[in-house]
Formats: sequence, C-alpha cells, structure tokens
Amino acid sequence: MDIKKNNIYCKRNIGMMMDLYELTMANGYFKQENAQKKVAFDVFFRRNPDQGGFSVFAGLEQIVEYIEGLHFSDDDIEYLRSLHLFTEDFLEYLRNFKFTGDVYAFREGTIMYPNEPIITVVADLIQAQIVETEILAQINHQSLIATKARRIVKAANGRPVSDFGARRAHNNDAAIYGARAAFIGGANGTATVSAGQYFDIPIGGTMAHSWVMYYEDELTAFRKFAEIYPDNCILLVDTYDVVKSGIPNAIKIFDEMKANNIQSKNFGIRIDSGDLAYLTKVARKMLDKAGYKDAKIVISNSLDEYTITSILSQGGQVDSFGVGERMITSKSEPVFGAVYKLCAVENEGKMEPRIKISEAIEKITNPGLKEVYRIYNEDGQAIADLLAHKDEEVNMENVYRFIDPEKPWKKREFVNCTAKKLQRLVIKEGKRVIEPEKVTDIAAFVKKQLETEIWEEEQRFENPHKHYLDMTKSYYEMKMNMLDK
Amino acid sequence: MDIKKNNIYCKRNIGMMMDLYELTMANGYFKQENAQKKVAFDVFFRRNPDQGGFSVFAGLEQIVEYIEGLHFSDDDIEYLRSLHLFTEDFLEYLRNFKFTGDVYAFREGTIMYPNEPIITVVADLIQAQIVETEILAQINHQSLIATKARRIVKAANGRPVSDFGARRAHNNDAAIYGARAAFIGGANGTATVSAGQYFDIPIGGTMAHSWVMYYEDELTAFRKFAEIYPDNCILLVDTYDVVKSGIPNAIKIFDEMKANNIQSKNFGIRIDSGDLAYLTKVARKMLDKAGYKDAKIVISNSLDEYTITSILSQGGQVDSFGVGERMITSKSEPVFGAVYKLCAVENEGKMEPRIKISEAIEKITNPGLKEVYRIYNEDGQAIADLLAHKDEEVNMENVYRFIDPEKPWKKREFVNCTAKKLQRLVIKEGKRVIEPEKVTDIAAFVKKQLETEIWEEEQRFENPHKHYLDMTKSYYEMKMNMLDK
Repeated sequence: MDIKKNNIYCKRNIGMMMDLYELTMANGYFKQENAQKKVAFDVFFRRNPDQGGFSVFAGLEQIVEYIEGLHFSDDDIEYLRSLHLFTEDFLEYLRNFKFTGDVYAFREGTIMYPNEPIITVVADLIQAQIVETEILAQINHQSLIATKARRIVKAANGRPVSDFGARRAHNNDAAIYGARAAFIGGANGTATVSAGQYFDIPIGGTMAHSWVMYYEDELTAFRKFAEIYPDNCILLVDTYDVVKSGIPNAIKIFDEMKANNIQSKNFGIRIDSGDLAYLTKVARKMLDKAGYKDAKIVISNSLDEYTITSILSQGGQVDSFGVGERMITSKSEPVFGAVYKLCAVENEGKMEPRIKISEAIEKITNPGLKEVYRIYNEDGQAIADLLAHKDEEVNMENVYRFIDPEKPWKKREFVNCTAKKLQRLVIKEGKRVIEPEKVTDIAAFVKKQLETEIWEEEQRFENPHKHYLDMTKSYYEMKMNMLDK
Repeated sequence: MDIKKNNIYCKRNIGMMMDLYELTMANGYFKQENAQKKVAFDVFFRRNPDQGGFSVFAGLEQIVEYIEGLHFSDDDIEYLRSLHLFTEDFLEYLRNFKFTGDVYAFREGTIMYPNEPIITVVADLIQAQIVETEILAQINHQSLIATKARRIVKAANGRPVSDFGARRAHNNDAAIYGARAAFIGGANGTATVSAGQYFDIPIGGTMAHSWVMYYEDELTAFRKFAEIYPDNCILLVDTYDVVKSGIPNAIKIFDEMKANNIQSKNFGIRIDSGDLAYLTKVARKMLDKAGYKDAKIVISNSLDEYTITSILSQGGQVDSFGVGERMITSKSEPVFGAVYKLCAVENEGKMEPRIKISEAIEKITNPGLKEVYRIYNEDGQAIADLLAHKDEEVNMENVYRFIDPEKPWKKREFVNCTAKKLQRLVIKEGKRVIEPEKVTDIAAFVKKQLETEIWEEEQRFENPHKHYLDMTKSYYEMKMNMLDK
C-alpha cells in the first residue's frame, strides 16, 4: 500500500516556503559572475531543549522529499514578478530551477548534540541559499517534538505514551509531522488519523466527553460504547463525577460484559481532569475490589515529563498516558534553534573555510568542510563526538589526542576506540541516494542508541552529563588561526 | 490576481486531519437510529494567553474553506478500511460525506474573551463530531499567534514589527498561517514568501550573515548589496564586530552612495546579536554623527513584548523590529486552549441544553443554544459581554440586570447601552454565506476595536482588567437549575 504517493497532501508545492531574503540575495548573486561557485552550509543547533543532555534528529525524510521536488510554478513566478524586486532573467532562472547539489546528513533518528553539523549542503551559491528556510523549519520542528517525546517516554518509564495533541498543535503540519516526530522519539502511537495514514504509525483513541453528554445518562453512554467496541472499551469517567458516578458506572458495564461472557482485549477507564495522582489511586482500588485488576487506567490532561514524574512518584496508578498540548507544542520549550551557516566557499577549485564571529561566543561557527565522528569505547558507549577536516584521516588504531574546544587545556586521549562517521551522502547531484526509512525503523534506531550507546548520565533530566564535542588537533588549529585573523 | 485558487497548497485534502475517536464515535452513532439528530457544539477557550486581558479571534477563513471542502477520498476510505474498526456501510457513508449543517461564528478579528462561544456548530451528530479537531487546530493556532503578535506590536509602540519566524515555526503551516495570524494581530508584514503569496501580506527582508561571509570582506559584501538594492539597503552589521567593523563599513557605503548621488528610499543597519539596547544607542550616535539621521536601525534576535519593552525603556534606538521565534511559536505560552463542547441535543424538535460538570470549576460548560452580545456604553466602549438564550429578547432600551457568574451576588445594571450580536451565520446548510475577507480588512478591524472599543485597562500587560462575561437572568437560572440536578 503506497497511499502517500497518491495523496495530494504530500504533493504540495512548498517551494515558496522561504524567507524573502533568500530570493533577494539569490537575485543579487545571480547578477555576479561567480554565482555558480560552490559553497557549503552547515545545519547545527546550539543547545538541547529543556536543559537536556541530547537531542533526537528528526525531519530528514521531509527535507529529502522537499529538495528533490523543489521547483517554482507559473503562479509562483507570477507572484514574484509582481513584487518588482527581481530581474526577468532571474525569474527565468527560477522557472527552470532544480537543485543539483549534494546533501550530507546524519541518519534520521541519530542522537545529536550541539554545535556539530547534522546536515551539510554543498551546492551552487544560489541553490544552497534557497533551501535554507524549509530545511530549518523541518529540523527545528520535528527534532523539537522527537526530543520532547523522548523525555516524556522516559518519564512514563515503560508505560505507553500516545500523542493526543492535534487540536493544540500549531496547525495541520504541526499535528501530522509532530505525530511522526513523537513516534520517532518513542511515543507508541497517535490519535491523529492522517499521521497514521501517511506514516504508518499506530493510531488509537477512545471517546470524548461529547459521547457521554449526548446520551440521557452516563451509564447508557458507556453501555452503547461497550456494545460497539467491546475490545477497545476505555470509558471516559470524568464527565460528571469520577468517583461517585464515572467509575461505578464503568464497573457496572464491566459487570454486564462479564455476565454476557464478553472477554474484552482492552478495557478500563480514562480520567481527563482533576487530581490525577489521587484519582488513579482511588480508581485502582475500586476496580481491583470489583475484580477488575486487568482494567486499564489511562490518564490525559496537560501531561509532560514533569507531571508524569510527579504523578508516578506519588504512587499514581497509571497504565498509559495520553499526552496532548505539552508534547505536540513542546510547551516548556517550544523552539529548537537549529541554524544554517555558511562554512566554506569554493576558490580556485578548493573549498575555503568561512567563519562567523559574533558578540556572543556561542554564536561563533565551526568553519570549513568537516566530518563528524562518534567515538565509542571498548564497551560500545559513545564517549565523545569529534570534528575533523573532511579529508583528514581519523584512525582509532593510534592513540588520538583530542581537544575539547570549551576547555582546550584539557587534552584528552583515547585508546581502543572506534570511530563512526555520522554524516552520509543523502542527495547526490540533486537525486536522493538513500531509501526512505520507515518511521518504525527510525524509532527503533533511536531506542537502540539510547539503550546501548548513550550514557545514562546524559539521559537524566537534572544536570545531565554534557557530551564532549572534540576537535582533531589539526581542525582546532585551523579554527584558532581563523579567529586570530 | 487570484493565485490562491490555483495553488495546490490550498487544495490539500485535510479531511483526515482529525482524532480517531471522532470516527470511532461517528461509527458508533451511525449504528444508532438517532444519528440524524441535530446537536450543537460550542468552541470557547478558558483563559487568555500570557495573563492577558483579551484574545484576537483568527483562523475563521480556513475553517470555512475546510468545512465547505470536507470529503474523504478513495485513498482515505481504503486506509480507514485497513484499520478494521468500521463497518462497510459507515465507510460508504464517509465516501459520500458532505457537511450540511450550520456554523455561527464571530467575525474574524473580533476581540474575544474566555468562556463565550466564538463558534457554534449546529449539525447532525456525526457531522458535528467530525469537524472538531480541524476547527480547534485552526483557532488554537491562529488565535494564539494573532494574540501574541498584538502584544508584541503594542510593546513596539508604533514602530513596525515584521515576522521573521518561518525557520523556527512548527513546520510549514505554522509558518504560513502563523504569518497570516501575526498580520491580523498587527504585524506589518512577514519575511515568509508563501504567506505573502497566499494572503496578500506585505513581505520584506534584507540579507543573511551568509551574504557577508560569502564575500572576501564585509565592505565588499555591503557594497555589492547597495549596488543591487539601493532602495532597500538595510545592512546586517553583526557578522564580525558591530561597533568596530559593521557600522563603520555601513557608513562608508552610505558615503559612497551619497557621493554617487544615490538617494535611497530605505537604508540603514540591522543588528541581530549582542546587547541590543546598548548597541542601538551606539549605532544611532555613530550614524547621526556621520550625517545619517534618517538611517534606520532594525533589530532582531529573540524579541518579544518583554524584551522590546525592556530595550525601549533603556532608551534603545530602534526604528523597526524583526521578530522571529518568540512570535511564530508564541514562546512564552505556546498553547491556546480552545475546546469544542456539546451544548445542546435535539429532542422532539427542540434543542435541549447539555452541560459538562467537572472536578475543576473552570471546566463546567455553558449549556444550550445561546447568543453572545457585546454591550457598549454611551461612549461606544465595550463594558461587558452577555450570554443569553438564542431566542431571548435582549433590549437595551430597558434597564437590564445582568449577573456576573463568577460573582453572582454583584447584580449589575446598565442604562443607555447598545448591544451587538457577536455571532453570525457563516455556513448555512453546508454552504458559506459570508464572503472571504481580506487579511488587511481583518487586521484593520482588530486595530479599530482596540483603538475605539476596548478599554485600555484590558490591554495592559500587568494585571489587565478582566472583561465581564455576564448572563441574562433567565440564562443564568437555567444553568443553575441544570447544575442543581
């Protein structure tokens, strides 16, 4: 089944999803004779959201699709002409525009850290400039939500987490690609139908308060639901009064099912308001006492890693979590700050490094074409990431000396390590050279790294260990020389 | 020019943008004989973002377009069948689905307050249920951003505010509809090209750091830019060093333009990092001293109503603001909590009120079909909003006694007032009955209300006056009677 390819949703023309300055600069470059020069831009971010120890890379597949399909329609050209900013020959150039450059990227789902190039675009000046906004918007959105989801999943400590956030998302794409990203980060599924349709994510859902309010009384509403969905019979018990009405009525329905010999695969209650720690404990006792130890308790309502941790630490009795607004907007920190910075410009056939200095030290960029390695110790744990020149040999058979650029006096040496390149070519001369990955495989890749490679100390919420980003001696000296100039 | 109608972006099939429970409930209702019963759902929110005194209603046009075009494609039906949740006759029903109900709504751009029905959907049970998620997602996203933009525009105190946020938005729709909403809230324009294209919003932009870094040196980069865009020559001065390099180089370029008799319509500098209050004061002095009192100073970098207020209160010298992530994500409060609650169900030809009780008092709904009036005093200022029964006569020629439901002991009386109905029919039997409004007209409507109708005391950031939401005596008694039962 390849529904996606047929769906107009995914065939949108998003070529014009860019900042105007990309076009005004491109128009400027177009007038220069050197507009065909190759340049390289790095995508990187400066800190992990929520003071976390790592982030989850998500959104690559949409970027590859975007770049492969990038074009400007006649309507687009007509609109741009109406702005009276561009020359006719530049508009003609746009009409025939195709991206023909190379793109390198981490595998989607890679655990990533600040200041390393997660994507590098190597292309003609104009082409590289034009793709900036959409690349950043995808990375910034999906990595934000994947990273947040991972935190929430960690707090849930093995219990399933479902995305219930569509209605509070920042419009359709935020709901749909957000559900995708949440799944990559470890959510078990989503309530958003189109996300299930486009990305083959498990979808689920129960009932709304409106179901209960529609019928004359709560008991009738529950009974009607149980008749139709005996195998997914999670009854929403907080429309009127959880303890006095909702749970007793749910128990009556479970009794009726039992009396009718109906074995439900999945039954229980959902609580969507009130003191969830208290109510789930009361609910568990009432359900157990009635003989329904296998009845599930699902909770929702403004959950995130902090409220979930709190509810569980109070002994809250919860089987699964429906997480809405705080995951789909990453409410506690709704901005992922990835940026797109020029790092090299072709000169006489060679890629010359470029650097951006700034008033703010953390805004100084890492210049030049480079390679990122993840360094693993003998036990397979990731001890550091390493920046090297693109063409530099990094051989772990020798003892290697690295430099932590934040603490250059701390020389670091590693023995018996292995190094893995994190970037790989994903688009070559405008054509994708990687297969689309299933989101289930991407999610499994995230899980595996966190279980086997990434230190537990980087995964805790409070004061996580800061992953080292080292540089080879040669790369560090090049950067320092540029700063001195 | 009607580009929008031709653009595939706006023709997306978003019928499946919903929560699964809407379909499982619909499938359930479909099996009941009473699925053709009319019901009414209200959309309302519970509090203003950022402890503000009001919110700005945005997103209506997209809701009307969505409801008019709502359908399910063959691919959609095929996907739903694959879930094994729905009967074939229900899938056939969906294949032929059209919304045939009525929708009432505030005019887009209306200043709105908590707990009043900004939209009411009156339709068959299933139809009304199915549109829930998309209506909420549009309202929640666009009203959030419009409300935030208004706060930022107020802080800017007459200086233009531009949306620079696309790259940090929560994906494409958030950037594009967010730019629309920001413009409705009072922003002067956006950098996002497709938002300009679809909604006829002014677009603008200058240069990125990459322009400066691409050339051998900053002066050359500035000179090249000034040659191409003499009339929109805002030079980005913080790539290397604002005071030592950026501003002196900009002044050299302005000198060259003057020497060549080039009169620029719009020239100046942009600062995107560092201590913006300090740097703008230094920049102003340097520019003035060089004879460029009319050179503009534009700032950007993590601006919102709080940082703008702070910069201006320190005497920062700013002509306009480029506002990115904190407006396009409403960073300080990224969730607008509008909900969709059943308020009435048809019974023997009459709409019977329904109410949702809750553990949390603020979650108790206002039952029944109702009308919202805005009450104006003799000076045309909005002194309260008023809930009444749909068919109740509200006549301001008499002295009217209202009840503030939060302080029912405070009886309130108004004389010489006028009352304006806030809801109007926007979709009748599935067809739109309002013309699409231009965003410039919606933005002007917002501005007019805030300048002439809405108390200044409701508009301040700190402890704004809380707008009264009163009820007629008859409506209040009906609600109290339902609560007693």
